[in-house]
Amino acid sequence: METQHISKAVIQRLPRYYRYLGLLLEQGVERISSGELSRMMHVTASQIRQDFNHFGGFGQQGYGYNVSFLHQEFARLLGLDKEHYMIIIGAGNLGRALASYVLFEKRGFHVIGIFDHDRSLEGSLIRDIPVRMTDTLERFLAENRVDIAALTLPSSGANEVCPILTGSGIRAIWNFAHTDLDVPDHVIVENVHLSESLMQLSYRLNELEAKTL
Amino acid sequence: METQHISKAVIQRLPRYYRYLGLLLEQGVERISSGELSRMMHVTASQIRQDFNHFGGFGQQGYGYNVSFLHQEFARLLGLDKEHYMIIIGAGNLGRALASYVLFEKRGFHVIGIFDHDRSLEGSLIRDIPVRMTDTLERFLAENRVDIAALTLPSSGANEVCPILTGSGIRAIWNFAHTDLDVPDHVIVENVHLSESLMQLSYRLNELEAKTL
Repeated sequence: METQHISKAVIQRLPRYYRYLGLLLEQGVERISSGELSRMMHVTASQIRQDFNHFGGFGQQGYGYNVSFLHQEFARLLGLDKEHYMIIIGAGNLGRALASYVLFEKRGFHVIGIFDHDRSLEGSLIRDIPVRMTDTLERFLAENRVDIAALTLPSSGANEVCPILTGSGIRAIWNFAHTDLDVPDHVIVENVHLSESLMQLSYRLNELEAKTL
Repeated sequence: METQHISKAVIQRLPRYYRYLGLLLEQGVERISSGELSRMMHVTASQIRQDFNHFGGFGQQGYGYNVSFLHQEFARLLGLDKEHYMIIIGAGNLGRALASYVLFEKRGFHVIGIFDHDRSLEGSLIRDIPVRMTDTLERFLAENRVDIAALTLPSSGANEVCPILTGSGIRAIWNFAHTDLDVPDHVIVENVHLSESLMQLSYRLNELEAKTL
């Protein structure tokens, strides 16, 4: 199955397909047509077929898709058939929220380290994981396999810690800091800019109010 | 200035322009060309001009853009010239993280209420805001102006609370629950699905590994 040249827009939709297929599985549904999936997900059947075709189509349309097979294929595409080892840098509320998110663990994302520069947090436990000091990060990375680093700290700290991560061979950064990280080309950054998401909501609310005035 | 028919992709880019213009303002830069902005933001100058043209263009290109004016215009577009009153439903780590995010307050988003159904949290303070019980939500909405409701609770709870919100006239929901909310057409929902963001990162990491093997 060819997975090259998939646009960001398609990639963004994959986890949602996976989520709906999981719901169908739970409901005991065995086969589903693109039309039924379309009504359920509020996207056009043609978009679904187009998206699926990027990955080989997943089976005959007239006959419907095999839900269990499709769910498994999406899991594989999303790398959920593998274990991923994650560290969290920044032990504030957001870092704690990520560390405590049971769903991640269920999907094979294991938090194996939490770091902060605040000495008063040293050794305190977040879900059985002791908070370590950021100045021990480099040694930790040398001694442990880490696939993903989540940055839940302010922008300045994120920019400081970033070269340590990339220098230690980290190839995937989940960035919550309000800044664009400067990383080598082979490093993947997935940004979650919460304040920008709130501003988008505010933009749309503003637009709505302008229309209804 | 016409703000109709702006695509979601353009709207998604607006907060980032606003952020970079803020950085330029801080650095005392008075004018900037689309070429300079392009190099700084790693997007093409033609995309910048195209995006800006949706909002009237913001001034002569050869001459460069007036940074302070542009910053102000983006703030207005994003509704940041207004005050917004927000409630948070779900007083777990993520709710606490949002309530404690000082940047939101600075941008005019005021958290005026935090709700949870856990009786043991009743009255406890998060950044001076007492946690209220979810069964008092409807009365609170009747007595207070609330523009935005942030949902930081599990999917089942989000689906239960949603009709109370929309029934009380809430028009903007910032949804962190791992579900698609069923809301009337006039209600805006901005989703932040953290596990889906992590899966996108995992997809790209998986893709990268397949290439380098």
